[in-house]
Amino acid sequence: MTVSSTSTDLESYLQSNREERLASYTEFLRIPSISALPQHSGDCRRAAEWLAAELRRLGAEHVEVSETEAHPIVYADWLHAEGAPTAIVYGHYDVQPVDPLELWESPPFEPVLKADRVLARGAADDKAQIHMHLRAAEALLATRGRLPLNLKFVFEGDEEASSPGLDQWLEDHRDQLQADLAVISDTEFFYGNLPAITIALRGIMYAEIDVVGPPFDMHSGGYGGVIQNPANALAWILSSLKSPDGIVRIPGFYDDVVPLTDLEREALAELPFDEESYRQTLGVPAFAGEPGYSVLERRGARPTLDVNGLWSGFQGEGSKTIIPGRAHAKVSCRLVPGQDPRRIFDLLKAHVATVTPPGVTVEVRSLGNGDPSLTAIDHPATQAAARALEATFGRAPVYIREGGSIPICASFENLLGLPVVLLGFVQPECGAHAPNEWMDLGNYETGIRTIARYWDELATSLG
Amino acid sequence: MTVSSTSTDLESYLQSNREERLASYTEFLRIPSISALPQHSGDCRRAAEWLAAELRRLGAEHVEVSETEAHPIVYADWLHAEGAPTAIVYGHYDVQPVDPLELWESPPFEPVLKADRVLARGAADDKAQIHMHLRAAEALLATRGRLPLNLKFVFEGDEEASSPGLDQWLEDHRDQLQADLAVISDTEFFYGNLPAITIALRGIMYAEIDVVGPPFDMHSGGYGGVIQNPANALAWILSSLKSPDGIVRIPGFYDDVVPLTDLEREALAELPFDEESYRQTLGVPAFAGEPGYSVLERRGARPTLDVNGLWSGFQGEGSKTIIPGRAHAKVSCRLVPGQDPRRIFDLLKAHVATVTPPGVTVEVRSLGNGDPSLTAIDHPATQAAARALEATFGRAPVYIREGGSIPICASFENLLGLPVVLLGFVQPECGAHAPNEWMDLGNYETGIRTIARYWDELATSLG
Repeated sequence: MTVSSTSTDLESYLQSNREERLASYTEFLRIPSISALPQHSGDCRRAAEWLAAELRRLGAEHVEVSETEAHPIVYADWLHAEGAPTAIVYGHYDVQPVDPLELWESPPFEPVLKADRVLARGAADDKAQIHMHLRAAEALLATRGRLPLNLKFVFEGDEEASSPGLDQWLEDHRDQLQADLAVISDTEFFYGNLPAITIALRGIMYAEIDVVGPPFDMHSGGYGGVIQNPANALAWILSSLKSPDGIVRIPGFYDDVVPLTDLEREALAELPFDEESYRQTLGVPAFAGEPGYSVLERRGARPTLDVNGLWSGFQGEGSKTIIPGRAHAKVSCRLVPGQDPRRIFDLLKAHVATVTPPGVTVEVRSLGNGDPSLTAIDHPATQAAARALEATFGRAPVYIREGGSIPICASFENLLGLPVVLLGFVQPECGAHAPNEWMDLGNYETGIRTIARYWDELATSLG
Repeated sequence: MTVSSTSTDLESYLQSNREERLASYTEFLRIPSISALPQHSGDCRRAAEWLAAELRRLGAEHVEVSETEAHPIVYADWLHAEGAPTAIVYGHYDVQPVDPLELWESPPFEPVLKADRVLARGAADDKAQIHMHLRAAEALLATRGRLPLNLKFVFEGDEEASSPGLDQWLEDHRDQLQADLAVISDTEFFYGNLPAITIALRGIMYAEIDVVGPPFDMHSGGYGGVIQNPANALAWILSSLKSPDGIVRIPGFYDDVVPLTDLEREALAELPFDEESYRQTLGVPAFAGEPGYSVLERRGARPTLDVNGLWSGFQGEGSKTIIPGRAHAKVSCRLVPGQDPRRIFDLLKAHVATVTPPGVTVEVRSLGNGDPSLTAIDHPATQAAARALEATFGRAPVYIREGGSIPICASFENLLGLPVVLLGFVQPECGAHAPNEWMDLGNYETGIRTIARYWDELATSLG
């Protein structure tokens, strides 16, 4: 880890309160703010109040725990850098559920320090990165009495639960949110702990397919061979959506895909990434996906389709001889720049109608959309982030495309018209959404310096 | 309803205790002997004890509540008709679960009399028919002091739960169970309340397919397009088993099917059966199944394959973006004479191996087999039953093939070497396994006369 180029005062300050900072970070981790579970909604509010108190303490203003249709959004700002640019800092204080609990080595909300890692639910995703932003701003204010640019903090509590209230909140606060860019720290470094800037995120189209057969479950002896079985019909429909080699078979699906350029393919190919050791890490017998593309290309730059859930009929031990009355699937597509999730939903729905066998009816319902997102590498805000990373971590970042979706990213771009820089610090193996999530304390500490440096760089390049 | 030809004494006796008989039948129905639910195992034992007491009361001997690995089997006999044939009478005192409870018009274990029907779980399947056998024997013994043939009663308590202990019990009691035939009253009349003798039952092969992918659920953003999705793979596998028009695609599946003869097809075509009104009754938009065969042929004389249950990944409200680690299906085939369920399982397993896509592993596990069964129309025991039905119900029975399976049927045939006569009295619309199950009291009363008459006919024709 290389720490350099932040002012000596700043570095001394950060060195001096390292223990207190870690105590504060783990205190934040102890709040079980699981947004998807109603029984934790009090904890989500507690996490929001905790953040508000921290923001007040470090010197932010207009601190507000702002109501939404779901959990509150915490807003705060510091706007005294006249003439300097304004950045929105976005993060989320909510965390994923913890099941399967039995796979955790220690209780998920009792943080443990182990080999320079903090183990806890939310240690990486996304509480660490919120805390890093708080502490970067605190260190700058404490040592300089001011920030080099204007900051507006937006911390939401529903990122892991589809952010139902966020877009409306953004619309309602459009004036308050005027800025020059948004910075989201909710992404990852590359394998081998290489500093990375994510330049693209996939979008998402999420749907449910409900197949309706007889009015209730029927005896499979008396009716087998006579009436259409909704579960068989569902299997038929799903099998028509994607072939086993990973090619999506919905007509028109690939029409709007912006192909990777040769330059991008070369850049991806040059990343230090070994598919075979990656496969072993994942514990799967083989990769599977679109022929002609590398794993990194398939993950970040190619669209795909996955069944996320299936249910029908009897799921217990032993045997029950029924033709289920209903069969259901959750299906989602990850989309790449050029693709419109609303159009993809329409194509899916039309295709399902053409392949539905006789004897059942099918409904296809939308459960949500997220637009894909792409940031230019040569944007000044991206290049400023690159300089900050190189100055603090000691090497220039790689530019990566992530397979996941951060819908807020498209919301900032489309609703507020802002460029978005994805500056994340967690390692890709950190177990976000899985048991034993962890954060590397080296990345946490150095990342605070990166953020502080980034504000200086932005003030210079956009100022 | 025509009642005739039983002796005047018998008829007077049955007329005189009709009220008491109905009270006893409904008392039996009040015992919630649901074999599939462990919390009702005490009720199953109570039903067995109730039957044993009734058998003792009517004059049966060697009454025994006999332990098995599951619920007890009730055995009793009356063996004083020297030189006359011996029949085993089989029935089951256990009943199906009652869910969905909210669809019942009255509580399932509080029998209600309504328009000459008894409504209750088990009213038809199979408690009515056990009770009819008890009361036919009682009436004969009460009025004549003897039966015209020897009877051995075998009433089990696990028919609705795959009869785990039955075959072993039959093996263990092989000597005690020597007989000339078995009579099973657990089948139906034909539509329009036409007396019917079931001459064929389909067999069954039941299996579970478990598709194994990554060690746990993975984020569909980070891994979609890279690793094989077990739920998509399962859909692919299931879609390869049967085409939407109902043709099973497992190689070799139809090899051993004994085709219907032209005579049988003509007899089935002559049954008073309207496919369109049947479709409306079932509430499905269209029938679906093998082209070139009628509904009755497909149901009784053609094999088929059904998915009985499906589960994988996320089944809740809303969206969860995972690639499930596992996907599962329950799959069963109904088989016709000539097909061996063990061979069909092997064919299924081999086929699944050939269509499993890369990146997942699949296990196919057997959950049970039942052989198909066929009784000759011209067997003397079948013809005796036909005469008894015609004498009591006033018209000759039709001969039908049932789509369901009664594994005990094959057990009697194969383990004990006995011909089996399927003499059932419930109506096909009776709602066995469904809410608001009912028994027609006319069929119940006349059927008691039929059974008594059948023993006389058998004594004459086999004696």
